[in-house]
Amino acid sequence: MKKKIAYLGPAGTFTEEAALRYDSEAQLLPFATVAAVASAVEAGMADEGVVAIENSLEGSVTDTLDLLIHESSLVIRKELVLPIDHCLLVRPGTQAHEVKVLFSHPQALGQCRRFIERCFPKAEVVAALSTAAAVEEMLACDSPSAAIGTKRAAELYGAEILARHIQDQSSNVTRFVVLAPTDHERTGFDKTSICFYFAEDHPGALCQVLEEFARRDINLVKIESRPSKESLGKYFFLVDLEGHRQDAIVAEALERVREKTALFKILGSYPRFAEAK
Amino acid sequence: MKKKIAYLGPAGTFTEEAALRYDSEAQLLPFATVAAVASAVEAGMADEGVVAIENSLEGSVTDTLDLLIHESSLVIRKELVLPIDHCLLVRPGTQAHEVKVLFSHPQALGQCRRFIERCFPKAEVVAALSTAAAVEEMLACDSPSAAIGTKRAAELYGAEILARHIQDQSSNVTRFVVLAPTDHERTGFDKTSICFYFAEDHPGALCQVLEEFARRDINLVKIESRPSKESLGKYFFLVDLEGHRQDAIVAEALERVREKTALFKILGSYPRFAEAK
Repeated sequence: MKKKIAYLGPAGTFTEEAALRYDSEAQLLPFATVAAVASAVEAGMADEGVVAIENSLEGSVTDTLDLLIHESSLVIRKELVLPIDHCLLVRPGTQAHEVKVLFSHPQALGQCRRFIERCFPKAEVVAALSTAAAVEEMLACDSPSAAIGTKRAAELYGAEILARHIQDQSSNVTRFVVLAPTDHERTGFDKTSICFYFAEDHPGALCQVLEEFARRDINLVKIESRPSKESLGKYFFLVDLEGHRQDAIVAEALERVREKTALFKILGSYPRFAEAK
Repeated sequence: MKKKIAYLGPAGTFTEEAALRYDSEAQLLPFATVAAVASAVEAGMADEGVVAIENSLEGSVTDTLDLLIHESSLVIRKELVLPIDHCLLVRPGTQAHEVKVLFSHPQALGQCRRFIERCFPKAEVVAALSTAAAVEEMLACDSPSAAIGTKRAAELYGAEILARHIQDQSSNVTRFVVLAPTDHERTGFDKTSICFYFAEDHPGALCQVLEEFARRDINLVKIESRPSKESLGKYFFLVDLEGHRQDAIVAEALERVREKTALFKILGSYPRFAEAK
């Protein structure tokens, strides 16, 4: 039986591309929100879910972080890093010099700002709710127009690709995570994500936690704070660290952190994404 | 001569409300992006700029953080905390039971999710690019519809307020900052925002910086990481701490931090917002 993978749709987005790269054989099920992807997996409608968690230019995808902290029992089973390659799509036959309107998601518009300023200084720029929605709007537009979207959206919607790699920085990559009921077994080249919360803030509370990792030479890959949703100024901390929760030294550090915090949750251990792959 | 304040528009958004509360006498100039607000102040078109920096449910406004880190020479001169009070707006005369379509910005829709599920379980929910744009779309819609927006938008666009305080959590507040060429003089009840960057990550680097504050009993209000935009896994850290950069003990700690980091920037010292105001 085919594996079923829920993902943040619609078809033609970068998340679909990540899900296809993760498992090209799986049956892909698009959902409209990160929460819906998680619910589909929790309810058994899908085996795993793929959602974006971080972009190298825009930062964390806060919907995904908040879901892991507050709402879901799912954990991270795998991470995937995908280069984000923006294309300029038009209705077949439209020439670049004719383009009067340019559609895309605000993040994509931001990532291609220099390209737009240089090549389409006079075009009206219109924000859309996703890169896939931008392609639909472009195809429905009466004026000659273009959309910034994925290669895959061009295939799905029958658009023509006028230009590729139009993003201002070539280092534009997005990290996706595979959410599942259980995390990954130890591989020896792993990462672990945790979150924690202090009942009372005092100078040095966070420092004392970070020291548990520093003194064991456990490298921190990332640290982030998210609002507790109770009041301004109270935060959950999210930390990604090198190692698996079953590595003896990591297990020991996590136990000390658990003792020092009011709330502590392991969001999963999973293999570190290897660039060379 | 009236003070000129640039703000993230359009009129009728919460940012306009914050700017009015900050200075009801000033001439308000709406701009379309956070970067445009900053440019207007840098170029002397406006004296100060007001932009959102953090919401108690949604977290940081990353556009504002990235502007302060990477792009602008402006600093934070003041902070303002505003309760976010969502209203349900309709075309005058429309009854609640007739409403078939509901417009708002995705964040406002998320903050009123329970209200929508209970009162409008069958309405079609449509995402708009701002709460003000949602009101415009609602007024232009052929079907009976409603929009979630501000009290002020109701006044500006001639809409009727059907319900107030419809957000799920009453603790929904947004922190705004006033950006200006210089920060605020010492008041004795201040906050300072800084950002820094490490050339090379090593276990404990961040911890060593935080210790400079902990050992001087300087309380950290907030810590946040933002992508360096160079590659995934390299971050700028933003820290808000209690005290003014001219307080002797704070000045000493900041000097130590400057020595330990590859890049260090003071984003401003300013009076802490007093809840009682």
